[in-house]
Amino acid sequence: MTRFGKYIDRGLKNLSREAVDAALQRAGMDKSAIEAAIVGNAVAGLMFGQECIRGQVVLRDMGIGGIPIINTENACASSSTAFHLAWLYVASGMYDVALALGVEKLYHEDKRRSFQAIGAAVDVEIMQRIMAQMAATSKKEGEEGGAGESRSMFMDLYAMAARDHMHRYGTTKEQFGRVAVKNHYHGSLNPHAQYRERYTLEEILASPLVAEPLTRLMCSPIGDGAAAAILCSEEKARQFTSKPIFVRASFVDSGKDHRPDEPGATERIAAKAYEMAGVTPEDLDLVELHDASAPAEIILYEELGLCAKGEGGPLIDSGYTELTGKVPVNTSGGLLSKGHPIGATGVAQICELFDQLRGEAGDHQVQGAKVALAENGGGMLRAEVAAISLHILST
Amino acid sequence: MTRFGKYIDRGLKNLSREAVDAALQRAGMDKSAIEAAIVGNAVAGLMFGQECIRGQVVLRDMGIGGIPIINTENACASSSTAFHLAWLYVASGMYDVALALGVEKLYHEDKRRSFQAIGAAVDVEIMQRIMAQMAATSKKEGEEGGAGESRSMFMDLYAMAARDHMHRYGTTKEQFGRVAVKNHYHGSLNPHAQYRERYTLEEILASPLVAEPLTRLMCSPIGDGAAAAILCSEEKARQFTSKPIFVRASFVDSGKDHRPDEPGATERIAAKAYEMAGVTPEDLDLVELHDASAPAEIILYEELGLCAKGEGGPLIDSGYTELTGKVPVNTSGGLLSKGHPIGATGVAQICELFDQLRGEAGDHQVQGAKVALAENGGGMLRAEVAAISLHILST
Repeated sequence: MTRFGKYIDRGLKNLSREAVDAALQRAGMDKSAIEAAIVGNAVAGLMFGQECIRGQVVLRDMGIGGIPIINTENACASSSTAFHLAWLYVASGMYDVALALGVEKLYHEDKRRSFQAIGAAVDVEIMQRIMAQMAATSKKEGEEGGAGESRSMFMDLYAMAARDHMHRYGTTKEQFGRVAVKNHYHGSLNPHAQYRERYTLEEILASPLVAEPLTRLMCSPIGDGAAAAILCSEEKARQFTSKPIFVRASFVDSGKDHRPDEPGATERIAAKAYEMAGVTPEDLDLVELHDASAPAEIILYEELGLCAKGEGGPLIDSGYTELTGKVPVNTSGGLLSKGHPIGATGVAQICELFDQLRGEAGDHQVQGAKVALAENGGGMLRAEVAAISLHILST
Repeated sequence: MTRFGKYIDRGLKNLSREAVDAALQRAGMDKSAIEAAIVGNAVAGLMFGQECIRGQVVLRDMGIGGIPIINTENACASSSTAFHLAWLYVASGMYDVALALGVEKLYHEDKRRSFQAIGAAVDVEIMQRIMAQMAATSKKEGEEGGAGESRSMFMDLYAMAARDHMHRYGTTKEQFGRVAVKNHYHGSLNPHAQYRERYTLEEILASPLVAEPLTRLMCSPIGDGAAAAILCSEEKARQFTSKPIFVRASFVDSGKDHRPDEPGATERIAAKAYEMAGVTPEDLDLVELHDASAPAEIILYEELGLCAKGEGGPLIDSGYTELTGKVPVNTSGGLLSKGHPIGATGVAQICELFDQLRGEAGDHQVQGAKVALAENGGGMLRAEVAAISLHILST
């Protein structure tokens, strides 16, 4: 993967090339060995007018063509979905070598365009109606500007979920803060992370308020980047390495309308993935998950079964998910510190798991990691995640 | 599928619902039986700002959620790709029932937006550079307006390919015209077709010139619509019908840079599909193919092996591809007459093959049809198609 960052002068092609070249080089493979490619990207249509054939455009530029190229989008889970489809191609036996590429450019001279693009990960028709109503109300009350133009409205949704968790389980703002302390610390050890500063809890809590209880350092930043993974049949992989990493489970799912006492999308898909992989949460050595905001990580601890419902706050306090804990979470720095170029995030999570399981994660290595899980969610419809993916990898 | 047409007052949700409801009703299946869905759409991001999670948005609106929903785009081959992935889910054994949905709205109050959206099926960065140069040249020469704003520049590319075919093989404008006569006649028999008028060769040739040798009636129109297909494992299908239609081959591919004497993308993928299906072009009872313009159909006759290189013109003259011919082509009316809501076209081709193979195609039935092929291409990169798909179905 590229280091995530602000790359005003680099385009989708340039970022993709760096990631794909790195993956090929690491595998000791020539690009001619790639039999199929799935490309995940969320917003190049809205950002740059490049819709329809984004994957062909970036891959052809580096001389990759004449193979199946499938473009997929699933908001923040776009390249997790690409990874899933690449896995499906290989696991089904249709192809022996498939490339999964995630790429995104979110920085734009006009910052509003970035936030508007991210805002497409909802039912745009309904959102436009709500925005029009809000604009009408603000006008009446003499307020300035429309909501959601200068920041992502997703942070308002996360803040709401955070307040609900606090109310329901007594979770504290400090506990959310500790997630950010942990992930920024992990990111400080990861050369691919966009932000590598460490912060104290006091600094996290004192950073500018985005939406109560979220401060800026508890929210994932805007970023550009690309990440690539090469999936092979076992036989093919053994031609290139004596230390392959296996995909034990791969699922994509979506939210639905359900009663509050029924399991949500993450719980449903986690149950399926654990079953396919033949593991339990206790077997995990590390987890990368979608900490688009710090409270999301606490909620996901519970939904992934790392702890019981309502125990996410105490879990972060206990150190269980720190780099040296029982199940380190977001050892890459997570979205908070590593960064979050939407369509690149899913495969970037896989890159982190790959490094860890190979024992090649350098300063942020989890000793003896054998089983790892990546969870990634994208978009919002009504009260639930629109797209979600879950992968379990192992040595 | 919906009838293709101009539906200013209907949105993506409404069109999708009609197509999915019709598919479920025809199958005698409840929506709760759908285990996964793949949604193909090419330009809703550019047309309406709905990117990222288009499939979830339209399906959730009709109460379908809590299943894998994958959004895919591949320009005009978007929903062919969706069909391919739905097939992959079922053929691999991962799911037993998968929905493939294609949906597109191209009509917009601002007609330029439609053509700009279609224009995204290229390398937009390169195209913008070319357009800027052309605009600068026009300005110098005192010409009005920029190219490609009031019509699709794809028709210029097709016109170029047509002139090349004429020059190389002596193909005539009348032969292109006969493709249009045939397809408009076929469309006149198909209640799902957007345009159901019949035309004489003289009328086709006398319709307004788009780009020599293409007249307007030789070009596919702008349209809105949706099409849905339900793919099942054989066992599951037998629970619903005693007359299932089988997918014998399914491929997606992309163009590449190659020498003129090497086979192009269509020839490569056709060879693979015939091999997987275990059939030859002689075994085909009918073909739906991507006649975005009439010359494309003639060129595709050759690339699909219905005749030898350069013999496409004589083939249309012979009546071989008419409804009563040996291998009727575009019995639905094709893109020329049935219409071409980009992202809906691929599954709409499958709908036609399904009707024909079931013997339920009404006035445009091909008697005793047993083996059928659908070819669909999308976008353009350098000199070749960006995305191409090929499916072979049989009784």
